[in-house]
Amino acid sequence: MNSGCVELSVKSACEYLKESNNYLIVTHSSPDGDTIGSGFALKNILNQLGKNANVVCADSFPQKFDFIVDENTDFTPENIIAVDIADLKLTTVLAERLENKVDLCIDHHISNTHFAKRLVLDASAAACCEIILKIAEELSVVINQKLANAIYTGICTDTGCFKFSNVTENTHLSASKLIKCGAETAKINRIMFETKRREQIELEKSALETLKFYYGQKCALIYITTEMMKKTGCLDSELDAISSVPRTIEGVLVGITLKQKDENLFKASVRTHAPIDAGKICAMLGGGGHARAAGCAIKGNLEEVSEKILSAAKTVLGEI
Amino acid sequence: MNSGCVELSVKSACEYLKESNNYLIVTHSSPDGDTIGSGFALKNILNQLGKNANVVCADSFPQKFDFIVDENTDFTPENIIAVDIADLKLTTVLAERLENKVDLCIDHHISNTHFAKRLVLDASAAACCEIILKIAEELSVVINQKLANAIYTGICTDTGCFKFSNVTENTHLSASKLIKCGAETAKINRIMFETKRREQIELEKSALETLKFYYGQKCALIYITTEMMKKTGCLDSELDAISSVPRTIEGVLVGITLKQKDENLFKASVRTHAPIDAGKICAMLGGGGHARAAGCAIKGNLEEVSEKILSAAKTVLGEI
Repeated sequence: MNSGCVELSVKSACEYLKESNNYLIVTHSSPDGDTIGSGFALKNILNQLGKNANVVCADSFPQKFDFIVDENTDFTPENIIAVDIADLKLTTVLAERLENKVDLCIDHHISNTHFAKRLVLDASAAACCEIILKIAEELSVVINQKLANAIYTGICTDTGCFKFSNVTENTHLSASKLIKCGAETAKINRIMFETKRREQIELEKSALETLKFYYGQKCALIYITTEMMKKTGCLDSELDAISSVPRTIEGVLVGITLKQKDENLFKASVRTHAPIDAGKICAMLGGGGHARAAGCAIKGNLEEVSEKILSAAKTVLGEI
Repeated sequence: MNSGCVELSVKSACEYLKESNNYLIVTHSSPDGDTIGSGFALKNILNQLGKNANVVCADSFPQKFDFIVDENTDFTPENIIAVDIADLKLTTVLAERLENKVDLCIDHHISNTHFAKRLVLDASAAACCEIILKIAEELSVVINQKLANAIYTGICTDTGCFKFSNVTENTHLSASKLIKCGAETAKINRIMFETKRREQIELEKSALETLKFYYGQKCALIYITTEMMKKTGCLDSELDAISSVPRTIEGVLVGITLKQKDENLFKASVRTHAPIDAGKICAMLGGGGHARAAGCAIKGNLEEVSEKILSAAKTVLGEI
């Protein structure tokens, strides 16, 4: 923790933002809707104040966020702002250059490492974009459709479209205001949650055919081989929905998805319901993660890998 | 249309509700979260006003709604209220007895047939439960956790958890108020959207195997036969998730799910993306519904029924 980090209220952060004219906004690597939405929403806000602002990321922004992304312009940045970044490490290749250089961090992660000189932290916010909306309101900028869309995207993606337990009355109140300002919520939700390629559906069908239950149906396992990926044309980035299926089955406490990486290597993705600790299961095989979602890489053929992960699941299931 | 039907404001409906003491609340058949939520929320409200109220349905309420459902009590009903019912036909076996007997209908379907003596219609409401919340507020009853849960359930189920185009600023504002009143949104969302029985997964697998595309992949159709239902043990009330699959496929504007009711009868569930009007497609075959989701019953074997609904879809697709 940087002992020189000063926590600011939204109001003080807005005063700070008024002071300078040329901002570089940094988003985290493997960018998601909340960091991208926060970044471009803040750019929009600063531009409305007559200031220059560019948004940068170590990775490129996925195509589905094209409707939020703006071209960068040519100027020399003086101040650096990080959005939705809990730890400078999450900027990967940019981290070294940014060390001790971030002037302001706007974030909602309780785990924020206070790496910036100034920090606006609201851990009760479901999305960093909820804080960005407060900044827009405090600065009395116009919440035009593009700004509303960017903020809504951060909120809906970080909450599983208002499904998760992080949603508060302010999350819905924010969404209500954004709709009033013209946010195209149905269009955005369709892009984020309701669009699958035919190849993805084909893969899901094949993966469902591998579904098996263990330990009195408390554990469910599916697998996806490189052969299945090749045959269906599904992409790695499209496997999120299917990986969540085993855990959704009634009575299942441990849902496991095995994804073949090469001939003798699989990645196990483990999702659990309380009280089963997914991180503990994966730690037994050299991996890690959170209590409800974790992962590990396991060497061997499908049979050997299944046996290893099922054995770890059995141990942890046996403890309850 | 019943020319004797009087449209009431929420305020006037509340005056009407204050007048009598013994209410029978009718929900539609194949009950969903909105009709069940509206029914039991209204019962809760009327009970708080010191009145008797029972909720009835031609079908039994699916188990997952147990947290909303209340026991009926013993009294003689004097007034009949229909909730979330666009057409008396939707009460199936109850329809004959209810003919000309419904004193008040509270609904959000633009297609409401004005079958009741009085009607509170707000077609801008995403869920009938949004209107019920307004009634609760107008009557100044306590929005306790059970009432908040019932209303939230109607709202989240009728909007696909705030994903659909029917969501307005008032929808989110309602959700915000309900969370403030203690609605257990994460728990409810898990039950409604993230829990499936094994039988349901088996049915989804079989249904995906029937997926076919038409009209340059703008239309996708799946079907579910009584044989498939019997073989997998899936229940009628568990078909919602699979019905939404055809429309989620990239490029598809009309998603159709055919569900066999008996040997020579299918129910078509049609979901569309703008500008295609699902209600228009279903109206061509004697059904109806909303712009993005509608349904109709079609006589014939699978081949004949497919041909009829595909032909209607083709007509409407041809108009864009």
